[in-house]
Amino acid sequence: MLTQTAAQALLDRIDDELRPALGEGRVASYIPALARVPAQRFGMALCGVEGVLACTGDASTAFSIQSVSKVLGLTLALQALGVELWEHVGREPSGDPFNSLIQLEHEQGLPRNPFINAGAICIADQLVSAYADPKAAFLQLVSGLCGEPISFDEEVAQSEREAGFRNAALANFMKSFGRIRNPVDVVLDVYFHQCALSMTCVQLARAFGYLANEGVQPGSGDRIVTARQARRINSLMLTCGTYDAAGEFAFLIGLPCKSGVGGGIVAIVPRQLSLCVWSPALDAAGNSVAGRHALEMFVTQTGISVF
Amino acid sequence: MLTQTAAQALLDRIDDELRPALGEGRVASYIPALARVPAQRFGMALCGVEGVLACTGDASTAFSIQSVSKVLGLTLALQALGVELWEHVGREPSGDPFNSLIQLEHEQGLPRNPFINAGAICIADQLVSAYADPKAAFLQLVSGLCGEPISFDEEVAQSEREAGFRNAALANFMKSFGRIRNPVDVVLDVYFHQCALSMTCVQLARAFGYLANEGVQPGSGDRIVTARQARRINSLMLTCGTYDAAGEFAFLIGLPCKSGVGGGIVAIVPRQLSLCVWSPALDAAGNSVAGRHALEMFVTQTGISVF
Amino acid sequence: MLTQTAAQALLDRIDDELRPALGEGRVASYIPALARVPAQRFGMALCGVEGVLACTGDASTAFSIQSVSKVLGLTLALQALGVELWEHVGREPSGDPFNSLIQLEHEQGLPRNPFINAGAICIADQLVSAYADPKAAFLQLVSGLCGEPISFDEEVAQSEREAGFRNAALANFMKSFGRIRNPVDVVLDVYFHQCALSMTCVQLARAFGYLANEGVQPGSGDRIVTARQARRINSLMLTCGTYDAAGEFAFLIGLPCKSGVGGGIVAIVPRQLSLCVWSPALDAAGNSVAGRHALEMFVTQTGISVF
Amino acid sequence: MLTQTAAQALLDRIDDELRPALGEGRVASYIPALARVPAQRFGMALCGVEGVLACTGDASTAFSIQSVSKVLGLTLALQALGVELWEHVGREPSGDPFNSLIQLEHEQGLPRNPFINAGAICIADQLVSAYADPKAAFLQLVSGLCGEPISFDEEVAQSEREAGFRNAALANFMKSFGRIRNPVDVVLDVYFHQCALSMTCVQLARAFGYLANEGVQPGSGDRIVTARQARRINSLMLTCGTYDAAGEFAFLIGLPCKSGVGGGIVAIVPRQLSLCVWSPALDAAGNSVAGRHALEMFVTQTGISVF
Repeated sequence: MLTQTAAQALLDRIDDELRPALGEGRVASYIPALARVPAQRFGMALCGVEGVLACTGDASTAFSIQSVSKVLGLTLALQALGVELWEHVGREPSGDPFNSLIQLEHEQGLPRNPFINAGAICIADQLVSAYADPKAAFLQLVSGLCGEPISFDEEVAQSEREAGFRNAALANFMKSFGRIRNPVDVVLDVYFHQCALSMTCVQLARAFGYLANEGVQPGSGDRIVTARQARRINSLMLTCGTYDAAGEFAFLIGLPCKSGVGGGIVAIVPRQLSLCVWSPALDAAGNSVAGRHALEMFVTQTGISVF
Repeated sequence: MLTQTAAQALLDRIDDELRPALGEGRVASYIPALARVPAQRFGMALCGVEGVLACTGDASTAFSIQSVSKVLGLTLALQALGVELWEHVGREPSGDPFNSLIQLEHEQGLPRNPFINAGAICIADQLVSAYADPKAAFLQLVSGLCGEPISFDEEVAQSEREAGFRNAALANFMKSFGRIRNPVDVVLDVYFHQCALSMTCVQLARAFGYLANEGVQPGSGDRIVTARQARRINSLMLTCGTYDAAGEFAFLIGLPCKSGVGGGIVAIVPRQLSLCVWSPALDAAGNSVAGRHALEMFVTQTGISVF
Repeated sequence: MLTQTAAQALLDRIDDELRPALGEGRVASYIPALARVPAQRFGMALCGVEGVLACTGDASTAFSIQSVSKVLGLTLALQALGVELWEHVGREPSGDPFNSLIQLEHEQGLPRNPFINAGAICIADQLVSAYADPKAAFLQLVSGLCGEPISFDEEVAQSEREAGFRNAALANFMKSFGRIRNPVDVVLDVYFHQCALSMTCVQLARAFGYLANEGVQPGSGDRIVTARQARRINSLMLTCGTYDAAGEFAFLIGLPCKSGVGGGIVAIVPRQLSLCVWSPALDAAGNSVAGRHALEMFVTQTGISVF
Repeated sequence: MLTQTAAQALLDRIDDELRPALGEGRVASYIPALARVPAQRFGMALCGVEGVLACTGDASTAFSIQSVSKVLGLTLALQALGVELWEHVGREPSGDPFNSLIQLEHEQGLPRNPFINAGAICIADQLVSAYADPKAAFLQLVSGLCGEPISFDEEVAQSEREAGFRNAALANFMKSFGRIRNPVDVVLDVYFHQCALSMTCVQLARAFGYLANEGVQPGSGDRIVTARQARRINSLMLTCGTYDAAGEFAFLIGLPCKSGVGGGIVAIVPRQLSLCVWSPALDAAGNSVAGRHALEMFVTQTGISVF
């Protein structure tokens, strides 16, 4: 277990080494709110299951969590449906880009896993069926995990809708196979809002604590999911959490991770700690360049790996 | 050239031979207005470029022309855009089902040809840009070709929209690649209406006369398209006009054909005549079973072929 | 019908107009014997079914006919097997490059048509089963069609084998689905030899006369295939004869054509004439650039089209 | 850490519970030597890094390890090439069946990972380049890991060659992209032999000890690979080790596993133990049905998981 002092020293060292190289990669530009984030931003936060909290850089700046939210959507759906959820979405890596329709067509509209867009839209459809107000349920879950109010960035949600033709294609395509029960517009509204959650590194590292603690949120002691569900979410993060680079992340970093095109990456060290790193410039696979480097440095310097 | 007597005798013979076997195949059932058409219906009409008109069976019963309308949409777009149209849609057989998204994904949203759904939707988008009232322009073209008023079946158009998730997926997908200029709803409204044109075999055989007559409508003498455009539309019908079975139709029938899931098939004998056959029960590729048999009998008994 | 004088004048005019532009495109370079052919070569020959013969440029220079031979292989197989052949190979355009394995995998190893490599290899397997000496049968057919001895270029055949890993992959892949009966090496030996037939434009235009004459070879009066088989071969040439550009050729030229990477293209005007044009520089789809231009000029200036 | 007594009790319990259900699934039948293994066979062995050894059932019966050998081939290649190996093979899950050519075609012949057939053949090519006698090197590595002589089953190797058209297709296809340096026959001979290694559960559990012990073989203390390499091999086993069901195994079992169509599955608990379970009847994905059940029981009863 890392002590408070060791954790802080480690993050400071990573920040020192990484900061000169910041800016490599390209900031997502498909919506204005993402495009205007400076490429040089970098923040990192670490929460130990026993209370250690370390952070560095822009760890308290809110950013758009984007696909990191897919883990939260999965959590909310598992709370409502349990194992029945897996009748609606698969658990295999996709081998195709996150927003590909090819695999969907070959597999009759069943999404490969909850972390590609199709899978997350399919889960949003389940949330619409299961919760009277799924957007409120989302905010309640996340605010509870963070211990402070979290909200949607409505400008981002609006932009997502206006640029969301690929996601509309995915949703309509799945509906043509009978995989979506609710109206496409309603489902996409939930999906676009979850992508538009605005959070800081500190908030995200804290929010994901339950996945490092066998399903129990470290601060509050609340059980969020069962221990088995927590292990399985971690497994999905490792095999499917970083788009087309999941194998590469597993190989080089060896921890369950979930990334978003806002530049955030959350990583879990089971039974020890949760991490969040953020830097908006992305590599070709859509993962934060500096975020990935920071995680590689973290595992190299600590020797931590699930393997 | 077939005489009036020979043409009528030929159609009578085909009707006699085919009628006992009617009903093989399955009537399209994805919308109620198609599902309730009796499988035993069969009609056939033939219009020679010099005035011969022969028909048999249910040749005067209106049916939903569905994808046969894609030829009319292409004609309308060529009238407005000429060769510039081909910047927006390809001219190659697809090798995939008519409503597949796979090829679109591999080819950056550019539809392979005007006769797959994606291509026809793309053309509908061009019509929305080119015509103040594209649905009125459609009716004007078709009514002019037939010499009598033609209308949309609004029940069918409405059902198409309600069942049209796959087409909505295609339209949104192409829009995500920047291939669709107008709002998806507006484009699909035109597309769903063109599919819902209600016509008889006699009307369709007459309407397609310009393709058998180097671009000039036989009755009226109106030039509809240039001779070169007429040849090229015929070429596309031969290579792409009958869904996944275009090679098979070219091989067995050897004439430009365009089919629809309403059970209609139009065929062209260049410089001689246009034909329409209708019977609603379809084979696995979506082509009328009896319609195809009728066309095979027609070419076998006349020795007619473009090859 | 073109007269001798008109035919010769037409070819002279095409030669005059095209010659300054020769050299656009790239000569095939995967084997030395093809790579060393000068890009500027251009020849053209035309044989009318009633005896007209016109030619221009390098029409008497032998070149490697490559995939043009697939029509001859199909002819030989139809002579031996008749309609039973179609249990082993399909008749649909492929929508994929000529040497793709993707479609084969999706369709359990059944080649889409006889003019993609997989289809031609499959036909070579049938020839091995049907003929005691399939290579001799090939030479006998082609020499008979030309009225003079034709032979294989053994250097080319040898090079094809040495570079033929993709074809070996196709053959082994089909054999893994049980689609190839004979040993892969034996089948590929036939296939590589047929590709290595060395012929001139005049010989090829003459050899393909039976396809312009309802199955009967014009000079000798020999029936090569039935009239129906001739029409069907023409149909396949139109829908599948020019690699990925078959739709484009049908659209722009409107005649059954078969091309090869040696730069030859044969075209058929049913009931009138057969043509061969040759120029070794190829476009991206593998068709002769000047050959295609020459055919476009031919149909524009004569108004000839099957449509 | 499991004690000797606890480990033996656990395996006995699994054996008791599983044995009545044995036989579900289908024994691989593509070669005679596999087809004749009785479906009821079941064995399991466990080796702790500190010397615990437990086993049950047919744990001392030799079977064909098939694809389990891909981990050994990777180990041998990493010993010779280190990180340079990764220029020749990827590290991503494939999303396609183990012997698919589709992904290869889309990705210019570069295999997705070392555990699909294409990747293992590509590694065999590297072994041919790196070792004077790669088959001897294989036997030396494996015999050293087991502490006793291991050999190839030559009947199986011979049968693999005779039935190996799909693998010959893969090898030729990669060679057509320039990805294979050595002659296809030589490479496949190594590949077919490694698949034909004949080992028992006890031998396999012991052989894989170095992956549970940060690269050092527990019995001998020999360093086989670096600690980092061991972690990375484990990572690849988790993301890619069980064919198309890797996500499912990660989700349900949560351990690095590698399976073979002989019915063997090896699993690693990092820093604790290595396991081998064998039962020849396979599920649709090609993994041992009883083997998978045994592993699920093992993790459920111990609570062991990397997550």
